[in-house]
Amino acid sequence: MNTPQHPQTLRRAIRAGEHRGNTSGLAPGYVQCNIVILPSAWAGDFLRFCQHNPRPCPLLASTGHPGDYTLPTLGDIDIRRDVPSYRVFRDGVLEQEISDISALWRDDLVAFALGCSFSFEEALLADGLEVRNVTQGLNVPMYRTNIDCVAAGPFAGKMVVSMRPLRAADAIRAVQICTRFPAVHGAPIHLGDPSLIGIGDLAMPDYGDAVRIDAHEIPVFWACGVTPQVALEAARPPLAITHSPGCMLISDLRNSRLAIM
Amino acid sequence: MNTPQHPQTLRRAIRAGEHRGNTSGLAPGYVQCNIVILPSAWAGDFLRFCQHNPRPCPLLASTGHPGDYTLPTLGDIDIRRDVPSYRVFRDGVLEQEISDISALWRDDLVAFALGCSFSFEEALLADGLEVRNVTQGLNVPMYRTNIDCVAAGPFAGKMVVSMRPLRAADAIRAVQICTRFPAVHGAPIHLGDPSLIGIGDLAMPDYGDAVRIDAHEIPVFWACGVTPQVALEAARPPLAITHSPGCMLISDLRNSRLAIM
Repeated sequence: MNTPQHPQTLRRAIRAGEHRGNTSGLAPGYVQCNIVILPSAWAGDFLRFCQHNPRPCPLLASTGHPGDYTLPTLGDIDIRRDVPSYRVFRDGVLEQEISDISALWRDDLVAFALGCSFSFEEALLADGLEVRNVTQGLNVPMYRTNIDCVAAGPFAGKMVVSMRPLRAADAIRAVQICTRFPAVHGAPIHLGDPSLIGIGDLAMPDYGDAVRIDAHEIPVFWACGVTPQVALEAARPPLAITHSPGCMLISDLRNSRLAIM
Repeated sequence: MNTPQHPQTLRRAIRAGEHRGNTSGLAPGYVQCNIVILPSAWAGDFLRFCQHNPRPCPLLASTGHPGDYTLPTLGDIDIRRDVPSYRVFRDGVLEQEISDISALWRDDLVAFALGCSFSFEEALLADGLEVRNVTQGLNVPMYRTNIDCVAAGPFAGKMVVSMRPLRAADAIRAVQICTRFPAVHGAPIHLGDPSLIGIGDLAMPDYGDAVRIDAHEIPVFWACGVTPQVALEAARPPLAITHSPGCMLISDLRNSRLAIM
């Protein structure tokens, strides 16, 4: 296929409106980010929510001041145009899905970039582990748990987790690998019996697709970046803009540079 | 109680025959070692066995040449007298249990010191995790598995594992903690369903005592230092001397110095 693979080339194509879809598998080796954009009056509480809940909300970068639309630590980024698809929420309700938010931009908006599971999935695959959702070509299954996030102002809610089935020895290896990457959700938060974290049926994910679980595999659960989106919908800010699921901001940061050792 | 706690003081008491029992809980903070002593004709194969199977047989030190009875990297040690109780095997059969092997010492003997689970149990406890065998005041339960060790000459056999039950989040934390300590068995090698590694009934350990497993706990399995003893019994060397179970060599090395990071 002819998809350009360098982050800057890809972002140029996205900025020109030439790529509006999923970014999974694009620019291998580079960090992709969840995006949350809020009015500055809501940004302080959201920042505190991220700080209180670093496992589901690992903050990688934020814009420098209200109205700023650049994220220089992540690359030559215009956050109004460099995400392939945005979701616009008014009072917590999805209003539209668009590929450019320049027309909606305001001088009081602040953008946050959060780590995403693509980075640790790449590290698992590089180590020879199977990532079932990748093998099956599906979205990872995600579940609302009974684990309360630490609230910050209006932002609160239950933690959402993603699940990947692994054999026990691979689950142990995955803990080792993901521990090196706290900026992209870090180590799993649970493994084994799903009911212990309030999940009723693995075949019925709340988001994404159910994946096959083979005999002798254990479900392994990671804190998930959908958690802040759920908190956002509950908080109902007058305006909030996020990336569309799977349509991430592609940064110039290498995944390997997120490893703490 | 009046037990002296410094390794050198303890070893002096042991050397004088004043302490012949279990060393569990003595000299907290210091590394205790499994000991294997063999004729030099058998030592090369045993060394290779350790190198091939580092998880159950983490070699910390060995004597410098046949007949040498010192282990200077572990302290001012006379390996003929500094272990509280020794087991003497002839042709793989336990012959006697004694507190001093000076009378048996030969110019062709080589001693090996291997890491022991006391070190990582201390790290788990220091992190606030419960170690059930410690809580219950029992020996850790140990099981023969269906996992083959890599053979070296006459040394071969199945891996023996120790088991500690933990809740899932604590099991994940235990993987992180123990990964830092490869010299004392490192990360667990299995968790969850015991039958997947050939263990039939957790209530019937092959060595040590059964421990309580509470609801919502997962059995977590570590490679165990009994593995080389099993290989030793199978190899049937004309003479082999080990520590008696739980009666370890107390070294001057701090547990914390075994952490690789």
